Amino acid sequence: MNRRLKQLVQWMRDEDISATFITSTENVFYLSGFHSDPHERLLGLAVFQDAEPFLICPAMEVEDAKKSGWKYEIIGYSDIDHPWELVQQSVEKRTSEINAWAIEKEHLNVERYEEFLARYGKSRFYTAEEKLRKLRMIKDAHEMKEIRIACELADFAMEVGVNEIAEGKTELDIVAAIEYEVKKKGASMSFATTVLAGKNAASPHGVPGLTSIQKGNFVLFDLGVLYKGYCSDITRTVAFGDINAEQQRIYETVLQAQEAAVNAVRPGIMAKELDLTARRIITDAGYGSYFTHRLGHGLGISVHEYPSITEENELEMQEGMVFTIEPGIYVPEVAGVRIEDDIYVTKAGGEILNRFPKTLQFIS
Amino acid sequence: MNRRLKQLVQWMRDEDISATFITSTENVFYLSGFHSDPHERLLGLAVFQDAEPFLICPAMEVEDAKKSGWKYEIIGYSDIDHPWELVQQSVEKRTSEINAWAIEKEHLNVERYEEFLARYGKSRFYTAEEKLRKLRMIKDAHEMKEIRIACELADFAMEVGVNEIAEGKTELDIVAAIEYEVKKKGASMSFATTVLAGKNAASPHGVPGLTSIQKGNFVLFDLGVLYKGYCSDITRTVAFGDINAEQQRIYETVLQAQEAAVNAVRPGIMAKELDLTARRIITDAGYGSYFTHRLGHGLGISVHEYPSITEENELEMQEGMVFTIEPGIYVPEVAGVRIEDDIYVTKAGGEILNRFPKTLQFIS
Repeated sequence: MNRRLKQLVQWMRDEDISATFITSTENVFYLSGFHSDPHERLLGLAVFQDAEPFLICPAMEVEDAKKSGWKYEIIGYSDIDHPWELVQQSVEKRTSEINAWAIEKEHLNVERYEEFLARYGKSRFYTAEEKLRKLRMIKDAHEMKEIRIACELADFAMEVGVNEIAEGKTELDIVAAIEYEVKKKGASMSFATTVLAGKNAASPHGVPGLTSIQKGNFVLFDLGVLYKGYCSDITRTVAFGDINAEQQRIYETVLQAQEAAVNAVRPGIMAKELDLTARRIITDAGYGSYFTHRLGHGLGISVHEYPSITEENELEMQEGMVFTIEPGIYVPEVAGVRIEDDIYVTKAGGEILNRFPKTLQFIS
Repeated sequence: MNRRLKQLVQWMRDEDISATFITSTENVFYLSGFHSDPHERLLGLAVFQDAEPFLICPAMEVEDAKKSGWKYEIIGYSDIDHPWELVQQSVEKRTSEINAWAIEKEHLNVERYEEFLARYGKSRFYTAEEKLRKLRMIKDAHEMKEIRIACELADFAMEVGVNEIAEGKTELDIVAAIEYEVKKKGASMSFATTVLAGKNAASPHGVPGLTSIQKGNFVLFDLGVLYKGYCSDITRTVAFGDINAEQQRIYETVLQAQEAAVNAVRPGIMAKELDLTARRIITDAGYGSYFTHRLGHGLGISVHEYPSITEENELEMQEGMVFTIEPGIYVPEVAGVRIEDDIYVTKAGGEILNRFPKTLQFIS
């Protein structure tokens, strides 16, 4: 078994859980290497304390599952089969009694849960999600390889976007150019690309539209690339033409806060200490009430995962975590600036995975 | 109460269901007019046999909910509230005992279901989805207004795409142009736009890539627009330059099959008769094994909903239904052609909601 499955089985032993049944695309991919989203059809990965795991998927996906490197049984079902009966038979071959199942309680729907209850009504049901979030929080070498490429592609996308800036172009023009060039590289975006011009950037959840880029304003980019199942996420804010003293001051404050938080990263520091490092600098500069969100979030298979970098989270950072550091200041009618890097925690501290410059870029 | 809520309450009376709790974005929108997707946060609509309904949503969305026209109670909760306790209190104000709940068993997750079980463990739980699918199948005048506009926008998107065809342009170039122009109209796509050139079109689930458009080939477009919560879905196949006799024959066969099925639409005809009308023509022309999917599917708030137009479905068509008719022939290495219209069932028959021409268009 791969290391991830072994860690899951160890947890099952510790918690006295006989079997785990995973149904979400993300967690099946994490544990098996097989990426599939068969929508309303069943995809499942069953893991046991003392028997071999199995995968169940639509028959037409069996070949893809084999190609993904999964070495254990794969059960393919057609539209006339009853997949839950196939699950039950495969479980019975492996174990005579199941005292407790772990399932994804935030993902499994009631209809499927009732299939479990009808067959294993005397079993207890635990949630597998908390454990999987913790496992996924620490990235291995293979994952880091993909994440690094996803980050390189995000740098590339930023370059495309900045090169596209010109008087009269709209936010959507720039979005279209970025997404087209990323698709040409064989990748896709990990979330809807954000390009916001001028006052629009002062809304932390603005949506790109037909606003034209105009000189004397910031242009804010927030984008990420999905590469072989792994996400990147970068934000940069650049100046188009000259900007005024207050805009400049806001930019420098965000940059100082962002760099201070990045420099504070080391194994053992609590998430909240990172958030507060940045927040203190922004507050001291008088913009505290304009930094309206958490400092950052983990990323990997999902663009938002553990750990959450908030001013309350006492979780200690560990080697192998990957998360964003993205403070921002949004002053309505004045300016919106956010700077975001993806950070990898190593013994030595926080390694920045993005290369696109953070010193204020003036585009003319 | 609006007509849709009244229909739901009538069903609850017939089935002896005390209360319904709806949590999916689509069904909350259908019943309340409020469109919201608060992701991991709770959105809920509670409907009772003998009391007023209520909505529960994150506090920051309460204003939007009011603006949407919802006239009953709206409960907003903050991140420190416990929304399920608020639900319980609001239910208790309305009714003393709940014998049976209807919930969306395909949508509600186990975590939320356990919140119900902890509070209403003695209640029975029925699924609300089958009923809602049936209600949503028959469109009212308001829905038809939005669907007609969504279809007009799909015609516009088709025109943009066809005008973009030129030697050397890639499938993705054309996708980018279409999506940009639709966004400029203030709408968005209802699913990922498909543009497939030449042999790629012979795969019914091909993905647009860097293949260049070349003369002597078909270009297949499958796209839809989402307008005010309602979807359209159109497919056209056009010829770039001259095509050969077999390509022409395939096109004419699909067109004949599509028009025959459209002409057969009337209240009372079974779904399978429509499918078989088209399938017979394609089979008689020798291409039966290359028409590898159902004839069509309902559309509305979702791009795929009831009714399903398959060769087995004995459901009778009714006035007010909207569904696609989209036969296709996919001969590997030769050609792929699909022609799709959105059809509205009226007393007089099937009204075609798309205007983009279906006679073979030659682009030079």
